[in-house]
Amino acid sequence: MKNLYLFGLLTFLVAGSFAQNPNRVKEPTMLNNPTRREILLPEIPGYEIIKSDFHMHTVFSDGHVWPTIRVEEAYYEGLDAIAITEHIEYRPHRELVKGDHNSAWEIAKPRADQLNIMLVKAGEISRSMPPGHIIALFIDDANKLETPEYMDALREARSQGAFIFWAHPGWDAQQPDTTMWWEQHQQMLDNDLLHGLEVFNWDEWYPISMGWAKDKNLTWLANSDIHIVASHRFNLQEYFRPMNLVLARERTMESLKEAMFANQSVAFFLDNLAGTEELLQKLFQHSVEVSKPFFTAENGNRLVELKNKTDLTFKLENTESGNGATQKLNILPRSSVIMTIPPSENGERVLIYKGTNLHTGMYENASIQIRIEP
Amino acid sequence: MKNLYLFGLLTFLVAGSFAQNPNRVKEPTMLNNPTRREILLPEIPGYEIIKSDFHMHTVFSDGHVWPTIRVEEAYYEGLDAIAITEHIEYRPHRELVKGDHNSAWEIAKPRADQLNIMLVKAGEISRSMPPGHIIALFIDDANKLETPEYMDALREARSQGAFIFWAHPGWDAQQPDTTMWWEQHQQMLDNDLLHGLEVFNWDEWYPISMGWAKDKNLTWLANSDIHIVASHRFNLQEYFRPMNLVLARERTMESLKEAMFANQSVAFFLDNLAGTEELLQKLFQHSVEVSKPFFTAENGNRLVELKNKTDLTFKLENTESGNGATQKLNILPRSSVIMTIPPSENGERVLIYKGTNLHTGMYENASIQIRIEP
Amino acid sequence: MKNLYLFGLLTFLVAGSFAQNPNRVKEPTMLNNPTRREILLPEIPGYEIIKSDFHMHTVFSDGHVWPTIRVEEAYYEGLDAIAITEHIEYRPHRELVKGDHNSAWEIAKPRADQLNIMLVKAGEISRSMPPGHIIALFIDDANKLETPEYMDALREARSQGAFIFWAHPGWDAQQPDTTMWWEQHQQMLDNDLLHGLEVFNWDEWYPISMGWAKDKNLTWLANSDIHIVASHRFNLQEYFRPMNLVLARERTMESLKEAMFANQSVAFFLDNLAGTEELLQKLFQHSVEVSKPFFTAENGNRLVELKNKTDLTFKLENTESGNGATQKLNILPRSSVIMTIPPSENGERVLIYKGTNLHTGMYENASIQIRIEP
Amino acid sequence: MKNLYLFGLLTFLVAGSFAQNPNRVKEPTMLNNPTRREILLPEIPGYEIIKSDFHMHTVFSDGHVWPTIRVEEAYYEGLDAIAITEHIEYRPHRELVKGDHNSAWEIAKPRADQLNIMLVKAGEISRSMPPGHIIALFIDDANKLETPEYMDALREARSQGAFIFWAHPGWDAQQPDTTMWWEQHQQMLDNDLLHGLEVFNWDEWYPISMGWAKDKNLTWLANSDIHIVASHRFNLQEYFRPMNLVLARERTMESLKEAMFANQSVAFFLDNLAGTEELLQKLFQHSVEVSKPFFTAENGNRLVELKNKTDLTFKLENTESGNGATQKLNILPRSSVIMTIPPSENGERVLIYKGTNLHTGMYENASIQIRIEP
Repeated sequence: MKNLYLFGLLTFLVAGSFAQNPNRVKEPTMLNNPTRREILLPEIPGYEIIKSDFHMHTVFSDGHVWPTIRVEEAYYEGLDAIAITEHIEYRPHRELVKGDHNSAWEIAKPRADQLNIMLVKAGEISRSMPPGHIIALFIDDANKLETPEYMDALREARSQGAFIFWAHPGWDAQQPDTTMWWEQHQQMLDNDLLHGLEVFNWDEWYPISMGWAKDKNLTWLANSDIHIVASHRFNLQEYFRPMNLVLARERTMESLKEAMFANQSVAFFLDNLAGTEELLQKLFQHSVEVSKPFFTAENGNRLVELKNKTDLTFKLENTESGNGATQKLNILPRSSVIMTIPPSENGERVLIYKGTNLHTGMYENASIQIRIEP
Repeated sequence: MKNLYLFGLLTFLVAGSFAQNPNRVKEPTMLNNPTRREILLPEIPGYEIIKSDFHMHTVFSDGHVWPTIRVEEAYYEGLDAIAITEHIEYRPHRELVKGDHNSAWEIAKPRADQLNIMLVKAGEISRSMPPGHIIALFIDDANKLETPEYMDALREARSQGAFIFWAHPGWDAQQPDTTMWWEQHQQMLDNDLLHGLEVFNWDEWYPISMGWAKDKNLTWLANSDIHIVASHRFNLQEYFRPMNLVLARERTMESLKEAMFANQSVAFFLDNLAGTEELLQKLFQHSVEVSKPFFTAENGNRLVELKNKTDLTFKLENTESGNGATQKLNILPRSSVIMTIPPSENGERVLIYKGTNLHTGMYENASIQIRIEP
Repeated sequence: MKNLYLFGLLTFLVAGSFAQNPNRVKEPTMLNNPTRREILLPEIPGYEIIKSDFHMHTVFSDGHVWPTIRVEEAYYEGLDAIAITEHIEYRPHRELVKGDHNSAWEIAKPRADQLNIMLVKAGEISRSMPPGHIIALFIDDANKLETPEYMDALREARSQGAFIFWAHPGWDAQQPDTTMWWEQHQQMLDNDLLHGLEVFNWDEWYPISMGWAKDKNLTWLANSDIHIVASHRFNLQEYFRPMNLVLARERTMESLKEAMFANQSVAFFLDNLAGTEELLQKLFQHSVEVSKPFFTAENGNRLVELKNKTDLTFKLENTESGNGATQKLNILPRSSVIMTIPPSENGERVLIYKGTNLHTGMYENASIQIRIEP
Repeated sequence: MKNLYLFGLLTFLVAGSFAQNPNRVKEPTMLNNPTRREILLPEIPGYEIIKSDFHMHTVFSDGHVWPTIRVEEAYYEGLDAIAITEHIEYRPHRELVKGDHNSAWEIAKPRADQLNIMLVKAGEISRSMPPGHIIALFIDDANKLETPEYMDALREARSQGAFIFWAHPGWDAQQPDTTMWWEQHQQMLDNDLLHGLEVFNWDEWYPISMGWAKDKNLTWLANSDIHIVASHRFNLQEYFRPMNLVLARERTMESLKEAMFANQSVAFFLDNLAGTEELLQKLFQHSVEVSKPFFTAENGNRLVELKNKTDLTFKLENTESGNGATQKLNILPRSSVIMTIPPSENGERVLIYKGTNLHTGMYENASIQIRIEP
């Protein structure tokens, strides 16, 4: 036994976490590096969900960080893809910070490659209203977007293959009272120069913008528009930063772009999800597993367990009040809840809930089926 | 639009957790702003404890953030004073980022004024070993530190009134094997050009440097040397960032400077405190309140409660083994522990513990008295 | 140097946290024991604030834990005093659990003595409405409260010196529609048999009960009424369990009792405080430190810092809209906020805020002064 | 009263974060109920992983909670199956708490049924060493285990179909110096009266017991042996409570029992896993997804991402030092890490790591393959 004990001690001397070297003692627990928190999303056959933020700034326009920080934030905070969207028309640090409209992308790219972050080339055409701020993604050269007329900038972007969206349509600095859809936006839409809308930006969401996304079949986006450090601005203890959950065929730039054009993006902000009815239902069905009834009460009511292994939240409200099923279900991330199912003839039952945090339009919500097998 | 607004209000009355303005809905819980977590420290009569980090970088040398971010980090992370210490000799972004050695301070100052952060003007003379990296605090003009000979730079700093310290003496890039005290450092010390030492930097601490601080009566420092975002580098969920707890007479720049020269700084890193025996004892005595005995067992042993209302940790080990008092005390932040006190004639008792996380030299620890009133 | 290194190693062998003894390896980080989280409250000269919960159950009535658990919970969860309040008239486990109405107290007492928890002897007279459930604290013998007429039980309790309060006046099982003050309660009040009211119980608070507390000068209480394990029922990650903050002269049973009769209790639930205007103002004034103005803008507006070193929350709303001072202040635990102060002639200024989480009656709130020194 | 109600409503419209019913205001955020945190484990085709704790006590032996609390703890803390294992020979509360050796199970069963917790009937034969404490699971009637000779009790248990294991073999109260395998244990083993061993109990693990589990092909167990409240004893902020991860064919009692006899249990304590090489490798391979190389450096080194979507931790150490692959990998729960892969001829590569927290015997660790596709 003694030998074994010595063996343990020796192992300890070699592996010990706290070697008293008088020159320096490393404290690995002091550092975050190099772990990345993975945001848990459902596995949906045929899709990769690309978590993305397509609106942010660095010192090369009016932001306060070096471009590599945007990549590192994305890595630590669980994103897969980002776009740095410098204002073409607004560079307040220009006197000290030189470079052109592509500099941020060029500086960030090597870091993105090492951290497996997809770096979308982009620019923000930043005009007064109308049309306000318009972002072009998947471009080749942001310098060419510096034109006197914004329509020329948009046409240039489109000729580079851009996906174009309207940023913060309800920003009160540009639309203080009523958020309007101007004829300029209609013109952009008619000319294939508008493909999406932010329904969330920073700390605010735009119900009216959700209505437009639905009615005009525009792609839904939730972006951070971060200028300072994301974790300084956002309450990341409680929520993830805002992001787009893009259902792409593969984790490639081409596939991401294709999915954005195909309206395959769900805006995710706080514990809300916003997008098309079809996508929201898909997210729910692949996130929440409904058990078989595991208990039957004397009155025939049964209990089932809803298990959510993702980081998404689903808040559901019974649409058939008085049917005896649980009225409200608050299905939290990585949690399960037990619900009551009223009796039915053959044991099967389909219940219809309204997803109160699942937005499909202005004051419209996804309809969610809970299907009980006998 | 008015009708829509009314519709929103009615929805609110029914479903109502937030105001349904169709133009925009603000989500204040999404943001951190503008709360600052206060680090709780003992009240010590006659002193203000100034929490400070005197070593960090921005885009104006080899850092990755704009200077204002350093101020905002300091605010959110509970500091009172910082110094931005750009490398005089190393500016890798120089091609894109212009400005001089004072630019970072000048950009950060207005933000510091608004957030009540004391912004110490400083510079890092960054040479190979010897003498390595030397930081000058409380200077007027960092541009004058750009001299061919480092001794000239130090003399210039001193003529500006600088407090000068040796950064990361045990950094393995400069002293890979044995950390040495070179004749150059002796010369600096002899000429009033060295007043302090980092005993902690980034994620490592230097036992040998603690020995020097004690033997040569140099001021103890623990700094972050942060280049990226502090919360990306450090595990701020578990620990505070490294900092100096400076016992100054007042919360003024003059008083802070005076205290640094007077060796009134305690290095605080992870849950360790390092400094002079006198300061560490003072911190303990004003942090931990010892109750009267509240219970006496049949064998005469008594129980008392040690209450720590600060964010400091005290790990104590009984120096008189076998005296019947509790052997190990782990007094966590904002916590209390109950300890056993052996009987004594008149009820009074003084127990001597070793503060295993309270460093006063190389492998030396503060001696802590726990005094029991009858 | 080599010797020093060996010395370090040897220290390590002795002190090392992970000795590989093949028989058993202790993992102290697996355990909570024996640390108690201290709830931080202001120091108010002349007072000890006794954190207390005066309503809870064990297996000796309809609770689900052994009495010692109530003491241990109190210790871990930061309380100073508790009362186990078994139902006199309802003991559903009686077939298996024997003993009398004093058993819970007797079993819990030795554990309370060791953990420095004040254990108030008590009983809950549990009748249908009127008068509902009435709790008597500070009694000698709960067995004598088992009487056919509740008034006899109350008189017996009072003859033992009891402080008597009405538990959960708005409990919907007993007052489903409108919460009424019955003539029986008036009779109790008139005969010195009613001294306090719960304004919070479990997960609900009673605005109307706050009105009665104010109008009839009854003592304010917030209790848990816990039957299962406190941490299973309550969201202790986000809030403390409900409790009374009793401003007593000393930390003694006598002083606690005196303070309860003197209406010196503040009900603390979620982040709300409820009690008399005087006590709430006192709590604020000793919790929040207002700095001198540290910054003056060009328009004469000044900034000051409000620093809260306690675990209390203060939500304040400017009562003089348009005076230029910050409209809403959300002063979180152990945090500080910066606020704007409009100019004034001599620099002094008193601002009046409404404490929206500081309840002094039904829909009445404490008025809070923020006083700025020049 | 009606007017008051209206007044309440109007207040609500103005201030409104909650409905101001003057009778009662419910605060759902105060409560935990009814959410269960789901512990995330890998999906292994053909298996259900049943999270179980097979050693705990209630007031019916020397525990301090009512049996239903054990079920509720199991639910909140993510377990699927528990056994209440009252001491047959030790019932210190017997004077006040009546009932027999089956009472705890009978009281807990209806609550278990409602919360979908599998409640294994069991008893702990509690003798001095040898043989110490022996637990019988899956029995029908614990009363029959009350026999003068422990071997009779074991035979009775076995005749009821019991799975039998030795609890805390290294408990220092019974084996203070060297943990021995007595001839009595050998006799039990030889007579099919011993099928498993605790390698972890409470806060301690037994390396020598891991050696026996391996050499004698006994089932590995980690149990809580909880007497008080689990969350009071264990640091559940940082770790899960100790548990067995049982790879069963189905989530049924029969399947669970079969798996226990088939040595399909992995002991999970702190961030350690202990069991057979085969099971530990299976857990790793289904927990951690290895990406294709996403980056190749100039020297041919490639980067891949290891993604862990479970709540398990894997600490890996390169067994071929100097091969250029990352030396240490600390794969935390719900996290990913990036590792370096040295070049290889066709791009394929198999790397062998030692799982330093994956125990397969006394000081033996699982060997983990990381396989890189070209």
